[in-house]
Amino acid sequence: MTDPHHLAADDWPALSGGTAGPAALRPLLEEVLAALSAGAQRRGGPIAAGRPAEAADRVRAALADATGPAALARLTELLAHGGADPADPACAAHLHCPPLAVAAAADLAVSALNPSQDSWDQAPAATALERELLAELAALVGFDPAGSAGVLTSGGTESNLMGLMLARDRRLGPDVELDGVPPGVRPRILASQAAHFSVQRAAALLGLGERAVRAVPVDRTLRMDPAALAEALAATAREGAVPVAVVATAGTTDTGAIDPLGPVADLASRYGAWLHVDAAYGGGALFSDRLSPLLAGVERADSVSLDWHKLGWQPAAAGVFLVRRAETYASLARRAVYLNPADDEEAGYPSLLGLSLRTTRRPDAFKLAVTLRTLGRAGLGRMVDRCHELALAAAELVRAEPALELHCDPVLTTVVFRYLPTGTAGSAVDPAAADRINAELRRELLRTGRAVVGRTELPAPAHSSNAAGLVRLKLTLLNPRTTPSDLADLLAAVVRAGRRVEQSS
Amino acid sequence: MTDPHHLAADDWPALSGGTAGPAALRPLLEEVLAALSAGAQRRGGPIAAGRPAEAADRVRAALADATGPAALARLTELLAHGGADPADPACAAHLHCPPLAVAAAADLAVSALNPSQDSWDQAPAATALERELLAELAALVGFDPAGSAGVLTSGGTESNLMGLMLARDRRLGPDVELDGVPPGVRPRILASQAAHFSVQRAAALLGLGERAVRAVPVDRTLRMDPAALAEALAATAREGAVPVAVVATAGTTDTGAIDPLGPVADLASRYGAWLHVDAAYGGGALFSDRLSPLLAGVERADSVSLDWHKLGWQPAAAGVFLVRRAETYASLARRAVYLNPADDEEAGYPSLLGLSLRTTRRPDAFKLAVTLRTLGRAGLGRMVDRCHELALAAAELVRAEPALELHCDPVLTTVVFRYLPTGTAGSAVDPAAADRINAELRRELLRTGRAVVGRTELPAPAHSSNAAGLVRLKLTLLNPRTTPSDLADLLAAVVRAGRRVEQSS
Repeated sequence: MTDPHHLAADDWPALSGGTAGPAALRPLLEEVLAALSAGAQRRGGPIAAGRPAEAADRVRAALADATGPAALARLTELLAHGGADPADPACAAHLHCPPLAVAAAADLAVSALNPSQDSWDQAPAATALERELLAELAALVGFDPAGSAGVLTSGGTESNLMGLMLARDRRLGPDVELDGVPPGVRPRILASQAAHFSVQRAAALLGLGERAVRAVPVDRTLRMDPAALAEALAATAREGAVPVAVVATAGTTDTGAIDPLGPVADLASRYGAWLHVDAAYGGGALFSDRLSPLLAGVERADSVSLDWHKLGWQPAAAGVFLVRRAETYASLARRAVYLNPADDEEAGYPSLLGLSLRTTRRPDAFKLAVTLRTLGRAGLGRMVDRCHELALAAAELVRAEPALELHCDPVLTTVVFRYLPTGTAGSAVDPAAADRINAELRRELLRTGRAVVGRTELPAPAHSSNAAGLVRLKLTLLNPRTTPSDLADLLAAVVRAGRRVEQSS
Repeated sequence: MTDPHHLAADDWPALSGGTAGPAALRPLLEEVLAALSAGAQRRGGPIAAGRPAEAADRVRAALADATGPAALARLTELLAHGGADPADPACAAHLHCPPLAVAAAADLAVSALNPSQDSWDQAPAATALERELLAELAALVGFDPAGSAGVLTSGGTESNLMGLMLARDRRLGPDVELDGVPPGVRPRILASQAAHFSVQRAAALLGLGERAVRAVPVDRTLRMDPAALAEALAATAREGAVPVAVVATAGTTDTGAIDPLGPVADLASRYGAWLHVDAAYGGGALFSDRLSPLLAGVERADSVSLDWHKLGWQPAAAGVFLVRRAETYASLARRAVYLNPADDEEAGYPSLLGLSLRTTRRPDAFKLAVTLRTLGRAGLGRMVDRCHELALAAAELVRAEPALELHCDPVLTTVVFRYLPTGTAGSAVDPAAADRINAELRRELLRTGRAVVGRTELPAPAHSSNAAGLVRLKLTLLNPRTTPSDLADLLAAVVRAGRRVEQSS
């Protein structure tokens, strides 16, 4: 039996929804803004100085003394103080963008209302809004909005997985069983050496095995060589293996290289392979009249990954997965009697359930729709162009600095380079020493709180097991408010850190 | 060449981060709060009246006229007006909770700063905070915090996928290839008839095939019958198939039934099967001293799914995946040279990359950490108990109403029942007519904007292809501010809608 007296109590913690939600949120949001401000000031730069262990100690201390109503402000200040803030021009390591204020504000509406897109009756407006937004994005890619389909995802990794899942199911049947595939069927996925590691991960998850992925050689800019793809597909055919999919990258993580989409589409088509284009980074170029020609051919893809939390200034997550022909989206069709019963669909209640790998799903489309309506494609295109120009400017600065070596011209908004140890300008560099010094100077910049720059390694050349001399530094420029003078400061800090590391080693 | 004049421009849209972010956000957040308020008032109830096509028309109209700085307010009002608001006591269909205001406010800090957990240098504090939170949650489940491991996920569907992936890789090797598994190996996953559909979906995604999932019979409350599991495992052994995993459900979506975890753990152990416990819903009971004994045995699981966007009052997503023994978490270990190079890890920079299926990853742990510190386990436990009491009260009201039929006693916070067509109380019900009327009365409540109640179907009895008479209605009670009087109103609305549907058919 229940206790009616207890049930009458109404001193429960405030909720964010309903008519009372906004008034309950207002003072809490004011606390958040004050704490964000205090944390950013205390940080005083792109990242707090110190080693990871010190950052972890600060977290433990804050968790130990944050209790009751003070917890929100205490932990928010911790998050801001202990963050790596992409809104600081010296934070330029990753495809980790500074969000637009309008996108972050729109995301609050989503948090407060908590719609979930696994059924219409948890998200009536958000369901329709996602479909409208996807049609606009399909048109941006060059797909027929009426014939294509898609869904918001957690990012390129999930989108790449979905593309490869559809490819697998088309070639090997919609309900593959490990024990049901004839032993002679050897599935192959062809992707460039510089393709994202999520391709291997997807192959493993899908039961195809990482070894199903064949790495196609790239040129110096990390762009797929179409002749090498042709040879790899011919070899697949010769061994009687099945070319399940070709993955083309439109914007590699490091150099921003865009594979030659037209020739790749021709080859995929000739061999009957699904063409998935990973445009998680490069998709942002579609906003720019100047850069969008780089993606010519993307409209021939069977499926595409786009990430607006990269070159789109959205808080994570804002991934998009699109397929050119909606009828190829069959694998996920699903009936759940508590979410999308047949009679509800017949009565006109739409369901997005069968489009996503997830069930509960936050409407990440909302912030993107608000951003697109606020700035327009042209406004976002100007931001893309600005970041591209910053990359060109940074490359010029690198070229002009004898202590630095540019790897290749920027394609999108990244610059790959390395520090040359003293005295090596113009002469041979000890590859192992250069690698060690570049890796260490990056950590030195982190420890001193001066800068967050990227670090990567170039793919090892074919027929070589020697990986020395491959470490590179990277600026990923996603902040349109960064100035050429900020870039000069950042590169000067890199050179100074290189000198310090050399002197102390 | 770049244009220095253009590069000097600084009239870019405001960002949410940095020291200037809070000031830029403040007026935008005020717009959001005003629009949320206006939208909720215009909605005037749990959901706006009308058919889905009308809701979609409103979305198209708003998207057509929302441009420039007015877009944020216009679209936020649309989202609120066109939402199904779980903070309204008459919105009680799904495991779709009304978020706590403090959790939504904490989520704003995450959106504004945009940390990403795929590398330490995108999220220094958030990296340490996630690890601390996971240790606390491991202790809550009964795992050894020092020996276990875990990660935040997008929800139970992803967590269930991860559990089954680890199970597959343990039994079939870490890099399964479809053509590499001996033809005689027939993997099997055993889960109850009432297990979440994401188990089938995971089996398909993992290349095991949906047919690898064997449905173990349940009792009337949808609880797994341990004798039936024993028989299913014995049958698997007899046919020489491999019992890869047993999935136990702690909180079925409909009845909240919790499988007998101790006996299931004994059986899984006897047959060498991985035990995954899907506690996406029932995990909330761990906050409650009164209800947590229902989950006794969960500490024996190899892996567990928990969702704090269900019985935890977080905005989506707030899923958690835990494994009892960290060393079994091998499948995802991964080195990406631009994210977690070996020398950085040796220098003390931790990486969460190898724990998640995602790469970019929003720190969903933050809002949950703030909530736990604000309310404590006891505060959340009181909310869980309150919702449980509401379910008991609703069940009593259903029992007292001759036009309604209770399916079974509530276990957690749901009530499954149906409307009995007029004149059938005490006499035989035409099963097909009852199904049609129950399904239609739910849509009638949606169309009139009076209530959002759940609808489901009971599993068909074994040896029967007749699914009529299985449609049920459901209240999922997740709002502690709901009162018994609200419940009486809601059930009265169900009865009135049933009468109207009968009269008009």
